[in-house]
Amino acid sequence: MKFLAVDVGGTSTRAAVVEEDGTCVGYGAAGSGNPTSSGTANSVSAIVGAGLAAIAQAGSVAVDFATGVIGIAGATAETGEWLRIEVAKAGLPDALKLEADLLVAYLSGSLAADGYAVVAGTGAAAIRVRGYRIEATADGVGWLLGDAGSGFWIGHRAALAATSALDDRGPATLLTELFLSQLGIDPIVERGPNGRGVALDHVVRLIYQMRPVELSRFAPLAFEAAELGDDVALRIVADASDALATTLAAVVVPDVSGPLVFGGSILSQQPAMAQRVVRSFPASAEVITVSDGLVGAAILALRHGGVPVDDAVFDRIRGSLATLR
Amino acid sequence: MKFLAVDVGGTSTRAAVVEEDGTCVGYGAAGSGNPTSSGTANSVSAIVGAGLAAIAQAGSVAVDFATGVIGIAGATAETGEWLRIEVAKAGLPDALKLEADLLVAYLSGSLAADGYAVVAGTGAAAIRVRGYRIEATADGVGWLLGDAGSGFWIGHRAALAATSALDDRGPATLLTELFLSQLGIDPIVERGPNGRGVALDHVVRLIYQMRPVELSRFAPLAFEAAELGDDVALRIVADASDALATTLAAVVVPDVSGPLVFGGSILSQQPAMAQRVVRSFPASAEVITVSDGLVGAAILALRHGGVPVDDAVFDRIRGSLATLR
Repeated sequence: MKFLAVDVGGTSTRAAVVEEDGTCVGYGAAGSGNPTSSGTANSVSAIVGAGLAAIAQAGSVAVDFATGVIGIAGATAETGEWLRIEVAKAGLPDALKLEADLLVAYLSGSLAADGYAVVAGTGAAAIRVRGYRIEATADGVGWLLGDAGSGFWIGHRAALAATSALDDRGPATLLTELFLSQLGIDPIVERGPNGRGVALDHVVRLIYQMRPVELSRFAPLAFEAAELGDDVALRIVADASDALATTLAAVVVPDVSGPLVFGGSILSQQPAMAQRVVRSFPASAEVITVSDGLVGAAILALRHGGVPVDDAVFDRIRGSLATLR
Repeated sequence: MKFLAVDVGGTSTRAAVVEEDGTCVGYGAAGSGNPTSSGTANSVSAIVGAGLAAIAQAGSVAVDFATGVIGIAGATAETGEWLRIEVAKAGLPDALKLEADLLVAYLSGSLAADGYAVVAGTGAAAIRVRGYRIEATADGVGWLLGDAGSGFWIGHRAALAATSALDDRGPATLLTELFLSQLGIDPIVERGPNGRGVALDHVVRLIYQMRPVELSRFAPLAFEAAELGDDVALRIVADASDALATTLAAVVVPDVSGPLVFGGSILSQQPAMAQRVVRSFPASAEVITVSDGLVGAAILALRHGGVPVDDAVFDRIRGSLATLR
């Protein structure tokens, strides 16, 4: 028997076909699968695209599958049922089980029954895990209410800093040049008929054609400007780290000391930010960084199929997946 | 001959029929007419609704009108042409001219050729006026890029403060109770299956059903909590005042000293905020607060019709409008 594991993210979606001993024999990837930020049609198409690619590489057909798991943000019983039906219609195995994206991220880093995860990608959240279940969540409430320290949060602040500087309301920053350049806008400061600088007017028109979460695409500008020593960018990155540390602190209790798993593109690609979040972590616990939640989805797929997962199986999932990607 | 004046706002839209001597003989009001935040269909319907109500009260028919002005945010030549055609089709006079909402707000307070206006309603911006034209604008770049100190900005921060407190990420604040109460949510802190407090989970579901600018409806909660001495709310209100002062400072130049006109629901209804903004204004200039831009739209309608507007006409517009509303 084979098992299907899918890890759905705000930027990309990944899938793997895993055998009973933990060997992954197929891998596939697709774009954003988050139904809230990308819409339900795009979500289904990303999950199906990644899943079918993994199945094709494994040479499997749907009837081979015992079960599977989709790790996804914000799944409820209702959305879960709807999503299962849609992806089964499109050719994925039926009876896929939905699990929280934060839990599969945690399990991608550790088999410990108790611990913590902080995930910062397009969004940001922290969880406390006890007995392999999420006992407490902090943040993860989306771009309009929180996701403090996330890619959106950093990219939004980079856009605000560039806008304020262009508008004489904020300090000069390298972010202005980087931001205009990424948008393909000439840096024209002369004012147009509405009294606003021509470049800023152009910025306003382009930004409101985007979906708000797309502002996460400006997060790399903050890291670039911070590396060049720009004070405004350094402040944004430091504030983001502090926000993630506050989110982690909100779920820490004395009787769960670790491990601590870091996930998501921000924390896995910005070691300086991860170090700053760790410094505020009270315990001397093990810290593991994972690039995504696919290993954890594979673990839960096996467990749901009644297959026990020990360290050997865990290592086999990680090793075989690393070869496939 | 008669003239039609319309002042389009993010929360409400107002119209008046004005005679050559400045006497207003008809008044009408409707809901939000901002095409960016409310959609073009709602914008047309608000403008037409307010306009036809004013015409009906004046006992006029469309053919009586020489010309008219619509004061509206973000109008360009293209949107202007489109809007003129749509409102004329619906029975308003044709050949209405579009003017910036910020300019009609300024002229509602002063006939001086040079001066400043700061408008904070759903959005926020400042202008420098020279020779009756807008020479420079600061902010007014919308809720995602700025509008610092606006109703949206304050309401968003109130929502963020309540959310953070519910999520153990921020200090306790009266805003939490007021926010949950306005949303009709029971204050249940027990955690649901996703590890998040039940009340917070409910908040997340309700907020993302709203258009982002609708968060301006929470601004009054910040003023209410601030009056009760809540530290978090006092900080939000003080930060909003400072943001508006920064926006004003961005357009101030030495050779234009005033007057300074305050407009929009936030500045006209929160004298403490207006006082804090004035304190940062360098000149000892006259400060005038207006409730909206309808007087200024009437002035520009007369001027576009070739009717000179002096202090007597200005006073007649203000006095007759005050009687009608």
